[in-house]
Amino acid sequence: MTITAHEVPSLAPGAERVPSSAIRDLLSVARAEGVLSLAGGFPDARLLPVEDLSVALTHAGASTDSYQYGPTQGEPALREWIAAHELGGADPDRIVITQGAQQALSLVVGALVEVGTDVVVDAAAYVGMLQPLRRAGATLHAVPFDRAGLSTLALSGLLNAGLRPGMLHTVPTHHNPNGSVLSDSRRRQLGRLASEFRFVVVDDDPYRRLGATPPAPLRCHVPDDLAVTVGSFSKTVAPGLRVGWLHGPAWLVDAVVRLKQSEDLHSGSLNQRAVLDLVARDGWLDERCARLSSVYAARAAALVEALTAEMGDDVAVEQPRGGMFAWATFASDLGGSDRLARAALEEGVALVPSSAFDPWGRGGDGARLCFASSDEPTLRAASGRLARAVRRCRDADMAASSSAG
Amino acid sequence: MTITAHEVPSLAPGAERVPSSAIRDLLSVARAEGVLSLAGGFPDARLLPVEDLSVALTHAGASTDSYQYGPTQGEPALREWIAAHELGGADPDRIVITQGAQQALSLVVGALVEVGTDVVVDAAAYVGMLQPLRRAGATLHAVPFDRAGLSTLALSGLLNAGLRPGMLHTVPTHHNPNGSVLSDSRRRQLGRLASEFRFVVVDDDPYRRLGATPPAPLRCHVPDDLAVTVGSFSKTVAPGLRVGWLHGPAWLVDAVVRLKQSEDLHSGSLNQRAVLDLVARDGWLDERCARLSSVYAARAAALVEALTAEMGDDVAVEQPRGGMFAWATFASDLGGSDRLARAALEEGVALVPSSAFDPWGRGGDGARLCFASSDEPTLRAASGRLARAVRRCRDADMAASSSAG
Repeated sequence: MTITAHEVPSLAPGAERVPSSAIRDLLSVARAEGVLSLAGGFPDARLLPVEDLSVALTHAGASTDSYQYGPTQGEPALREWIAAHELGGADPDRIVITQGAQQALSLVVGALVEVGTDVVVDAAAYVGMLQPLRRAGATLHAVPFDRAGLSTLALSGLLNAGLRPGMLHTVPTHHNPNGSVLSDSRRRQLGRLASEFRFVVVDDDPYRRLGATPPAPLRCHVPDDLAVTVGSFSKTVAPGLRVGWLHGPAWLVDAVVRLKQSEDLHSGSLNQRAVLDLVARDGWLDERCARLSSVYAARAAALVEALTAEMGDDVAVEQPRGGMFAWATFASDLGGSDRLARAALEEGVALVPSSAFDPWGRGGDGARLCFASSDEPTLRAASGRLARAVRRCRDADMAASSSAG
Repeated sequence: MTITAHEVPSLAPGAERVPSSAIRDLLSVARAEGVLSLAGGFPDARLLPVEDLSVALTHAGASTDSYQYGPTQGEPALREWIAAHELGGADPDRIVITQGAQQALSLVVGALVEVGTDVVVDAAAYVGMLQPLRRAGATLHAVPFDRAGLSTLALSGLLNAGLRPGMLHTVPTHHNPNGSVLSDSRRRQLGRLASEFRFVVVDDDPYRRLGATPPAPLRCHVPDDLAVTVGSFSKTVAPGLRVGWLHGPAWLVDAVVRLKQSEDLHSGSLNQRAVLDLVARDGWLDERCARLSSVYAARAAALVEALTAEMGDDVAVEQPRGGMFAWATFASDLGGSDRLARAALEEGVALVPSSAFDPWGRGGDGARLCFASSDEPTLRAASGRLARAVRRCRDADMAASSSAG
């Protein structure tokens, strides 16, 4: 750190490397009046269980322990519930309660990744994982995906060519952003590769309960000492309480707990106890997730139908089987996803361009469309606006090509 | 990262460097039956404003926004309240809401400190700051302290000898752990040194409202582009809500917000809104802090009186003017603070040894004693036990010396 008079001290390299999330920057624009937003990953506020939460908070708040300092690893009773109900009978001591899934991802990166650590991610990867990886200085390697999730054939090729990653991250179930579900056979193949080449596999799994029943989680196939599962109550209960969790091998959990202690001591006691009060009610979470899944499925169908009706073969968008996001690509050259996002905003619809999910921020011509936050008429109106934006980009591009020719 | 078959990937260097907090490890022992604890820094559970919190949570929970994703920088209305009432009219855009003061300290370290950055701390420093500094690989420099806080003369000597720190951290008001209050003249001198040598000054200030009115905060003397203030509602409202904050220059706040985004997206929406509901009530916080200050002052007096009555000149302990902690040192050689802490536990009283606060974990012969969590009879009983432990250590030490001689 070199300081001359009237300069301020320079930032640490990690702080220089971490960019602001393109999505959160977009959200401020998306909230402008008249803009229909397919950009955020917000649960629909009208579907939040406000009354049940109010009762749960009253229950939890009756104990002074809810307002006191708590254990860094998280409330034992909540860890026991997660071990039994989300992990089919795991060891609660291998679970850490975190500030949403985001802190779980950030802590795993903090524990494992240093400058130059090789990390494998999807070619369209979760932006919330790219941020801590960039901060840590990871060397990123992208694997292509299709509707059946990341290509284990491509991964196998990289590994056989000599890549020795410390970690692989994916969202195997209802992928954010690319909407895929990793097939059971690829899950098994990924487990075999992790076993052979000894890398940590992070199964980032907040959408498991939202949609069609998915194949078994990656920890069923990955060696036990290399398998990390990340979960969250943000999509199933409420994001504003910031309660997520991770499950991993003891050697990693020990490091994660020490890092969390140095970062924030522990997560909110009241919030953890209120979440437990809700999810421990017999059938509550199953019923709630069934209702959300049904509402979201109808919205996903409406969005895909409207996009196809508006654009026909110009758009490629798979019917999502769950989660909150559809992934759209376009037949014509639109001049890059950032240009499409700008044109869409001008037409009054917000989306997240594929560049936000590219490990190197490159363009592509795709977009992540959130179907979960808006009702069906809104999704249809947004599809019409998006179709106009796509036509504008295509026509401008064709005009540019013909004048260039 | 070198991996051979059946090894697990190695931890990142920062994760290897961060130790578990000695205090949190001690707390698990301190909770054993029959042990009187002077170890933790917990507010007295019987003094928590449970009924007021319950009403505040009901108010805050009436809005769905309390359960939704929120801004990374924190709820605007809470930042406005802090700017007006805790910072005498600051710019709310230079405030970030954090998970308690701990996350504020950790984020500032993340933004500024890399391996080898020189950082100045007190010779008995806040352990929650030492953890992130060790993780970041800071080169630590300790400045001695007395009842008037850190020695600016010693600091001046270090700077004139060529030290060019990136940051200085202290708890100028009711220091944790050493109980000192930095005098106004030293605050001014520290400001002059920061101005001349251009280092960031972190005024870690969670105890300002608990005790005798202290001198003006460091930001009144430190150049505006180098002054960071950290505050918390953990000691004044409730720690389990995890609501703290920092105020700093724009160049640093920008980096802190990006780091927080990558670490946990944002702090709990409901918690921030419930805290605001309470503190915004006319006179609520002033009345509460007056009551806590009065109860804590009586407890501090009882502890100092009992220690002096039990040990006379064998103990040196200043009457704290506020906060939650007294700092005790002992006339005789007790064979190190860790040994004293073990003997104390055997006598049924828990304390934190001075080694926990030494930047290099060295012993010393002191202890941090929390007077805030226990009532006066308990403090008197604990003092009797501590006196027995001190006598045991001293006598064992003398026996060892005489047999050695």
